[in-house]
Amino acid sequence: MTNPSLLILPGDGIGPEVMAEVRKIIDWYGDKRGLVFDVSEGLVGGCSYDAHGTPLTDETMEKAQSVDAVLLGAVGGPKYDDLDFSVKPERGLLRLRKEMDLYANLRPAQCFDALADFSSLKKDVVAGLDIMIVRELTSGIYFGEPRGIFEEGNERVGINTQRYTESEIERVARSAFELARKRNNKVCSMEKANVMESGILWRAVVSEVHEKEYPDVELSHMYADAGAMQLCRWPKQFDVIVTDNLFGDLLSDAAAMLTGSLGMLPSASLGAPMANGRPKALYEPVHGSAPDIAGQGKANPIACILSFAMALRYSFDMGAEADRLEAAVEKVLADGVRTADLLGEEGVTPVSTSEMGDAIVAAL
Amino acid sequence: MTNPSLLILPGDGIGPEVMAEVRKIIDWYGDKRGLVFDVSEGLVGGCSYDAHGTPLTDETMEKAQSVDAVLLGAVGGPKYDDLDFSVKPERGLLRLRKEMDLYANLRPAQCFDALADFSSLKKDVVAGLDIMIVRELTSGIYFGEPRGIFEEGNERVGINTQRYTESEIERVARSAFELARKRNNKVCSMEKANVMESGILWRAVVSEVHEKEYPDVELSHMYADAGAMQLCRWPKQFDVIVTDNLFGDLLSDAAAMLTGSLGMLPSASLGAPMANGRPKALYEPVHGSAPDIAGQGKANPIACILSFAMALRYSFDMGAEADRLEAAVEKVLADGVRTADLLGEEGVTPVSTSEMGDAIVAAL
Ligand SMILES: CC(C)[C@H](C(=O)O)[C@@H](O)C(=O)O
Ligand SMILES: CC(C)[C@H](C(=O)O)[C@@H](O)C(=O)O
Repeated sequence: MTNPSLLILPGDGIGPEVMAEVRKIIDWYGDKRGLVFDVSEGLVGGCSYDAHGTPLTDETMEKAQSVDAVLLGAVGGPKYDDLDFSVKPERGLLRLRKEMDLYANLRPAQCFDALADFSSLKKDVVAGLDIMIVRELTSGIYFGEPRGIFEEGNERVGINTQRYTESEIERVARSAFELARKRNNKVCSMEKANVMESGILWRAVVSEVHEKEYPDVELSHMYADAGAMQLCRWPKQFDVIVTDNLFGDLLSDAAAMLTGSLGMLPSASLGAPMANGRPKALYEPVHGSAPDIAGQGKANPIACILSFAMALRYSFDMGAEADRLEAAVEKVLADGVRTADLLGEEGVTPVSTSEMGDAIVAAL
Repeated sequence: MTNPSLLILPGDGIGPEVMAEVRKIIDWYGDKRGLVFDVSEGLVGGCSYDAHGTPLTDETMEKAQSVDAVLLGAVGGPKYDDLDFSVKPERGLLRLRKEMDLYANLRPAQCFDALADFSSLKKDVVAGLDIMIVRELTSGIYFGEPRGIFEEGNERVGINTQRYTESEIERVARSAFELARKRNNKVCSMEKANVMESGILWRAVVSEVHEKEYPDVELSHMYADAGAMQLCRWPKQFDVIVTDNLFGDLLSDAAAMLTGSLGMLPSASLGAPMANGRPKALYEPVHGSAPDIAGQGKANPIACILSFAMALRYSFDMGAEADRLEAAVEKVLADGVRTADLLGEEGVTPVSTSEMGDAIVAAL
């Protein structure tokens, strides 16, 4: 049997720093648990543009298609703000999502016990929170045509198209229902069916999939604006939320921030099963490239490390190893080890990115 | 001089109950301050559909075009969930917004001192909060064509179009900059220019208006997902936020909920000046029709009453009278008078909708 393969794309900003800590974890699994990964590395985002004039080369795209899982750090930064739309760092990430057809983006919004005080929300509102947002990732207004800036009369017009097919909605709905069955068996679907026809279709298709294939799961529907409200009011009412690409972008970021654990939250983007049965998969932290603190050793590597834990669980069916890694993170937090983003308590001295990585390796 | 004219559209659910309290306030201004309004009333939403088979008759639409200001309660309810899209209650409201060309929707997100404990956010995060969200209201994905559900191959496709012209962005940007000048002189514009071309145009046009006409105002830009995060983390960093129709829908609802004052928050939707110099205007509470508590005398009328205060300020240039009404509301809250939605403290008995209205009249 060949070793499972990983493509590591550290990207921009704090990406390389946090990814260096993930490599320590990967090495630990190889040395101590005999889990050896074939690791290769590549460029994505601004650093790829700097080297090759494109945020993702065809070669790296092909490599991503051929490995078992991709781990990505973060892309973007002010240095690239004035680049043409077609070569912006984000286009590299969007191309990976689209060409690998990673339609289900899993974003857990979890509040870590040791950090419940750290949220801007009251402790009882977030303590113990554990919800999963399933965001459609390969369609909707992110990719719909026509799009662009056009001249009309004597002014410019900006156009984007929200476009969802029945089968695109079906497959992400199934992902949400499957996840719910392994959790608390509840799905809430969010759209704006009161205003958008694409939302009407979304609601109808989710309901049909539910009725035919998952009648045992509890399903509710909510308008996305009400959903944003309810996430802020009492997020524990939710288990799994399923929503489209754009609503998912806003709602999952809001939910992540509510937990007070933004530097802690991983994500998995999954597609259809490959020949070996493993899903196409890309794992990345929810946080961005944080250019303001890049290169200073201040970044929190936990979100990226937990993204690797998600890879163990969803790509390699190693749930027990994922549990082990998550437990190590919890232990380090419980011990009071904190990177600078997690400071709230008095008198705690922050550790560096690499000290946090070392602490987690030690806890393993 | 003729009296200023008001069209009252109570709508559905709790709309009629809360509007009855506004009428007490209007009567008080007529009796005690000699401010007599010509008030007419009409139907919008589900109740109009029940009576006339349409959520807004042409007659009521014409009336709305001819008055100085429209006051609206709320529209919608589960009873109308299965209606065809074209006659849903919401279409009545959307037709008013579109045909009156009410492009600037002003949504203050304010935390009332007496209610700071009531938010799901920590007190220091929200106490004293006072931000203004300016949402574009007549364009974007709410109205763009093509739209609909189509057959393609052998499946359905749901389509909506985000479409913004330069002049649509310009005029709402001006509204935001004007407001900022009367406040803390800061505007933050939110879009997804990293993903959507309409967002690129939005950012460019807002920057151009800023540079040419409002260089004295501080302008920043934020991606809407980061905006959702920052609203949850530290909302006091903002003064005026300007954003498009759909992002504004979600962000303003989230912001409203953060204040803990959802039943308290008014809105104004303003268009171009009419022949008499007053802007086309519609005022409505941010909350919805709340069908679960409709008809029980439990609803909080304050959001609707404060919407009338906004009418005094923005349509009738009676800032001092608006201040008076807002002060009366603050006094009643400081006295501990609470409708059921505002209960949090132990041992407080809620007052009814009409008792709250009476208390505010008494405080005037
Ligand atoms: C970087 C950007 C293109 C991306 C998105 O909008 O999807 C990010 O915000 C995210 O949520 O992963
Ligand atoms: C009722 C609905 C059509 C409306 C909207 O989506 O604009 C509401 O949510 C609002 O924010 O005023």
